[in-house]
Amino acid sequence: MIQSNNHCCWPHLSEIAIVSSKSGKFRKDPRASLLEIACEPCLSIFKESPHFRNRINCILFSTTSNLQYGSTILCEYLGIRSTVSQTIENLCNSGTNAIISGYSFIKAGLCDTVLVVGADRRDTDGKRLKWDITRGQFPFPVHWAALFAKAHMRKYHTTEEQMAMVAVKNREKAMKNPNAIFTSKITIHDVLESKKIVEPIKMLDCSYVCEGAAAVLMTNEENVKKFTDNPVWIKGIGIHAESASFARIGEDLCSMNSAKIAAKKAYEMANVKPNEINIVELHDAFTIMEIMAYEDLSLTRKGEGGKFVFQDEISINPRGGLLGSGHPIGATGVAQVAEVAEQLSGNAGKRQIKNCGHVGVVHNLAAAGSSAAVLVLKS
Amino acid sequence: MIQSNNHCCWPHLSEIAIVSSKSGKFRKDPRASLLEIACEPCLSIFKESPHFRNRINCILFSTTSNLQYGSTILCEYLGIRSTVSQTIENLCNSGTNAIISGYSFIKAGLCDTVLVVGADRRDTDGKRLKWDITRGQFPFPVHWAALFAKAHMRKYHTTEEQMAMVAVKNREKAMKNPNAIFTSKITIHDVLESKKIVEPIKMLDCSYVCEGAAAVLMTNEENVKKFTDNPVWIKGIGIHAESASFARIGEDLCSMNSAKIAAKKAYEMANVKPNEINIVELHDAFTIMEIMAYEDLSLTRKGEGGKFVFQDEISINPRGGLLGSGHPIGATGVAQVAEVAEQLSGNAGKRQIKNCGHVGVVHNLAAAGSSAAVLVLKS
Repeated sequence: MIQSNNHCCWPHLSEIAIVSSKSGKFRKDPRASLLEIACEPCLSIFKESPHFRNRINCILFSTTSNLQYGSTILCEYLGIRSTVSQTIENLCNSGTNAIISGYSFIKAGLCDTVLVVGADRRDTDGKRLKWDITRGQFPFPVHWAALFAKAHMRKYHTTEEQMAMVAVKNREKAMKNPNAIFTSKITIHDVLESKKIVEPIKMLDCSYVCEGAAAVLMTNEENVKKFTDNPVWIKGIGIHAESASFARIGEDLCSMNSAKIAAKKAYEMANVKPNEINIVELHDAFTIMEIMAYEDLSLTRKGEGGKFVFQDEISINPRGGLLGSGHPIGATGVAQVAEVAEQLSGNAGKRQIKNCGHVGVVHNLAAAGSSAAVLVLKS
Repeated sequence: MIQSNNHCCWPHLSEIAIVSSKSGKFRKDPRASLLEIACEPCLSIFKESPHFRNRINCILFSTTSNLQYGSTILCEYLGIRSTVSQTIENLCNSGTNAIISGYSFIKAGLCDTVLVVGADRRDTDGKRLKWDITRGQFPFPVHWAALFAKAHMRKYHTTEEQMAMVAVKNREKAMKNPNAIFTSKITIHDVLESKKIVEPIKMLDCSYVCEGAAAVLMTNEENVKKFTDNPVWIKGIGIHAESASFARIGEDLCSMNSAKIAAKKAYEMANVKPNEINIVELHDAFTIMEIMAYEDLSLTRKGEGGKFVFQDEISINPRGGLLGSGHPIGATGVAQVAEVAEQLSGNAGKRQIKNCGHVGVVHNLAAAGSSAAVLVLKS
């Protein structure tokens, strides 16, 4: 439980800021090793600011691979002398978990500057939910995405066209993101006519698990000035694990309870209302999940997610989301945080949103929404 | 860097206490699944105190296995509704890393009660340091243990008999530990005559990687009274990663630099001097490592570790250490913390040390001492 009450009683503590972040190129690259991939965004950070390297005293590696002591190997590859060094895994939610760990280590005073690195390869074990026998013969995520889509269509008359529009929109945004795996425009017709995987989910409704990495550098208030004049502060953290098995995910297949709880906590901690949010990176592993996330994050009313895809007031998934950028599992949460931080600090290059505002949200999920994390960032 | 200076300036924060801990039976049990093994110590805690279960809001799983989202699955097996749920890996140092994460999550106010579970099976990938090609054809830990032993023997005239005595002592202590894998007495002669593995390391100088688990329950100061009248406080944390490869471990093969740095940090943070320490759980994967740890922890002067094995003022490895208890990799750090907490709170059963004092230390290592963690606990 986020102790929002206790927070008020506590004396002021150092705030935590994101001071640099980079994404590597998301791609299909079976020859590249996990460690090579993981180093890419870190080296981009150090190329721009060589003096950052020596200030890092904690490295957290988010991955679903089974490489042993990968965080410590990364230290050596990158020439970092770290105190805390650990690998963190919670499926698709690994990256956001690692960000939250970094935040906590700094808050606890165990280190002051944390590099969070997320990386994965397509051949990870994280793609298939082997343990959950309540899924029966349907262990792949697309099976439960189909259940969610069917339920939402039945209850709220959400259409296949609205879902297709999510893919069209995110692919279009990805065209401005040099690190996205997909670079070409698609139409609603393309999505609807793409290969049917599990009724009503078609090929272009699905994100693509690929090779890729992202890195985020965090520090405490006292050190921020040594890194940047445009820090982005982590103001709200909500995290919740509902269950591990699909059978216990709740009665309502039209929303993710874990995400709703995580959002509520994060908004409360940051003292932010949904209508104050300017930019959102949300977990669109399948098009239906973006529509559900609109509702779970209270960006629109329940049942109206299908229509909300056509709004343009809030910037949603500006890097192209998982659908446009690709989904290297352990990297995704870190890349989402990196994108919101880059936008809020005005460092998003070609895809920089003009007047993008000051309040950003990251929404990430694992295993059919059985666990969720929501972060509120502010510039 | 532990910010000991900043600590002083900080306003008083809630202290973190260990309020319950249990070890499962360490054993050779190829048929048991990792999750079954992991649940054992947790169920022992809940059997004794059923109301603890509902108070837990964070679960951290320390393991070197490549099970995906194991922490969330454990939540479901154990009937826990968690906020933070993640798997943490840093080879043999995984368990201590998970304890430190739990401490940080509570300090950061993201949860108040954390269950840390460590578990592993013998068939884990964590046994072989595949990545480190600086080890050449010698990827098994016993190879570097032999280098350390040779160096210590050459420089400080440490003898094979002194090393053997470490095994004899720890096996004897294990006889009182119902969860230890080894239950019979051995003699110095047995060790010296056991099969030579790598000169001068013999079979009985080595710990045995086995199946096993341990669990530690932590909470903040405000909640302690709901759990126990005998809390054990985490007062000092030192953690340091020196390198990942053996080639960069330092010039002196007679000590572990990472452990020396970690000990210094932990003692400073806890404001404890080495001569105030009453009980120590240290990482004796090989007999020579216990001798080196005496020196790295400043329990004796450098070079005098060989003689120190015969002292009986400080209680060292009362559960039998890794040599007597067995070494389920991800569980070891958690079991070490559990042992010191049980002794300091007077809950160690048959092996309870009379008047065991108030200051305990845990010392854990990963990958040839390339990283180390030292904790100071106080009753």
